[in-house]
Amino acid sequence: MQTIRVRYSTTRETVKKIFKHVGFSTEDAAVISDVLLTANLRGIQSHGIARIKSYYLDRIREGMIDLDAEPEVVNSTSTSAVVDGHEGMGQLISYFSMNKAIDKAEAAGLGAIAVKNSNHFGIAGYYSMMAESKDMIGITMSNTGGYVLPTFSREPLLGTNPISVAIPSKKENSFVIDMATSVVPKGKIEVYERRGEEIPSTWALDRKGREITDPSKVLQNLEEGTPGGLLPIGGSKEETGGHKGYGFSILIEVFSALLSGGLTSNKTYKDGKSGLGHFFMALDVKKFRRVNDFKEQVEQYMEEIQTSKTVGGKEQIFYHGEKEYNQYKRNLERNEIAINPKTYREIQDLCESMGIESNGFRRIV
Amino acid sequence: MQTIRVRYSTTRETVKKIFKHVGFSTEDAAVISDVLLTANLRGIQSHGIARIKSYYLDRIREGMIDLDAEPEVVNSTSTSAVVDGHEGMGQLISYFSMNKAIDKAEAAGLGAIAVKNSNHFGIAGYYSMMAESKDMIGITMSNTGGYVLPTFSREPLLGTNPISVAIPSKKENSFVIDMATSVVPKGKIEVYERRGEEIPSTWALDRKGREITDPSKVLQNLEEGTPGGLLPIGGSKEETGGHKGYGFSILIEVFSALLSGGLTSNKTYKDGKSGLGHFFMALDVKKFRRVNDFKEQVEQYMEEIQTSKTVGGKEQIFYHGEKEYNQYKRNLERNEIAINPKTYREIQDLCESMGIESNGFRRIV
Repeated sequence: MQTIRVRYSTTRETVKKIFKHVGFSTEDAAVISDVLLTANLRGIQSHGIARIKSYYLDRIREGMIDLDAEPEVVNSTSTSAVVDGHEGMGQLISYFSMNKAIDKAEAAGLGAIAVKNSNHFGIAGYYSMMAESKDMIGITMSNTGGYVLPTFSREPLLGTNPISVAIPSKKENSFVIDMATSVVPKGKIEVYERRGEEIPSTWALDRKGREITDPSKVLQNLEEGTPGGLLPIGGSKEETGGHKGYGFSILIEVFSALLSGGLTSNKTYKDGKSGLGHFFMALDVKKFRRVNDFKEQVEQYMEEIQTSKTVGGKEQIFYHGEKEYNQYKRNLERNEIAINPKTYREIQDLCESMGIESNGFRRIV
Repeated sequence: MQTIRVRYSTTRETVKKIFKHVGFSTEDAAVISDVLLTANLRGIQSHGIARIKSYYLDRIREGMIDLDAEPEVVNSTSTSAVVDGHEGMGQLISYFSMNKAIDKAEAAGLGAIAVKNSNHFGIAGYYSMMAESKDMIGITMSNTGGYVLPTFSREPLLGTNPISVAIPSKKENSFVIDMATSVVPKGKIEVYERRGEEIPSTWALDRKGREITDPSKVLQNLEEGTPGGLLPIGGSKEETGGHKGYGFSILIEVFSALLSGGLTSNKTYKDGKSGLGHFFMALDVKKFRRVNDFKEQVEQYMEEIQTSKTVGGKEQIFYHGEKEYNQYKRNLERNEIAINPKTYREIQDLCESMGIESNGFRRIV
């Protein structure tokens, strides 16, 4: 697929202006832009500014996202809280909540925040990396729409339920897990549909519970809420550990929906509200051991993995977050990000309709 | 494979006597027996009294497990601690540590204990259920020997790294995840070897990184520490999410080995010490929301899963821990557990050599 490269710094300013124009404060617009652009910098195009219109502006217009909502702490102890997002912008609720988790961990060693009534928050890794940058282990979880099948079930009762864990290390590039607990996220099915390609038979089941390789039919099923859906990590069979992927998905459902008293994935996106739940946790490494020792040992282990003998001619073994960091660094150095042509046009149109000066948002020739 | 049934209550007394005879106090022998027999009650024969000799008594004799070691808290805050197990019995270190996590959670909402220099602790689920029985969410993790391959690597740098999470609910049978983060644990390969059957090609790779179906060769590789090993959840391919299983395995390595300053799985079981690490955490549900509301909502979600439409004629969908609880309940009611003939003879021989009255430990005709 064709890719267009644009300046990172000016795109970021343009995106900020768009969110300010919609009605967010300068500070809030900066947070939202940073979350979205960080996805683009890390090469996760699907979760970046490509979603400005469909995931955020359209939903604000439809009333699913409440621009003026303030996250409210409804229950709080020295280590824990439940935050009611009141249907506000997911990025703002999440930034607020992870900062609370970090503050509590700073004081008490651990901090855990369960969130209800939120919206899509972008990449889970953004928030776990907030903790990581303070030498804490950061954990982020979220539920989603009901897209994923429990093992041997035909009903999508689970979300694609991403989890991110970020671990401080001596390396400039930390260890950052950031992944859906389905074999692939919904966005990947959309990519195959756009390309007109079949999906592998291990990704989804149809209404009758049979393997399915047509991405359009999978997406139609998800849209209509009929039986059928995506498979958890490990696929449909116990032989590849599908029942274990199902276990991890449930686990994330418990932490992000049930601990906060929110909605489980099978009940989200009804009646014009998404009602997503999240979970944020920070563990302060220095409460357990000397931070420097920890970071050195993490680095050593990561290097043992990187330099281990490979299968089938692969050049090296990657750890989680390594490829994304390499892209991040290269993109920052060049002051560039990649987007697809549709996103390019979409943002240009937005600028035009909002009367936003977009001379910085231009294709790099 | 032939199975022998014996009385639960008298077997438990016999096992206690064996551990007392070896030198443990009455109290400690009771904890060890309870952990082992709980595995048998829940139908997890592989992790129960079948291991008394090879995993525990032999290792005590060889000096790998130090009978007299006392777990030591080397670092402690209101929410966290590192425990040095000093190479003691894994069950005792773990029982001690999860109780600490529960006490801290009772006072502060959350409690997290990282453990180093421990030994094999039995089933992970035992400890997470300790927290669950107090209306807390319990989490247990452990690393193991170096048996599992990072995606595209031929070196077993990871453990089979079990994780257990137990969630309180209104149901008498709670939601209890308890699973290795490899497609299958090492014990399952041993079962196939004993039966003389081939393993599925999705479970392990040989020294050259090729799929392998001969269980004896897999076990030989693990024994000799040469390249080759078991695959993480999702198998060898990104198509079924193998790289995500690899991520979960690393995560458990970080929490159970690196946070405590212990050994990563690739460095355990060297120089006559196992040096395993664990992680125990308790989250007190009532600090987040009304316990009753939480437990009701968990129950409701579990029932939605149980009664969902099934694939391919399956009668019902099970949630994690459901089958194990059903066995537990039936076994308790009948006052029986199942063991294999080898274990039956082994325990009879132990009783004889120790001069232990074993008239209660008899096959049920």
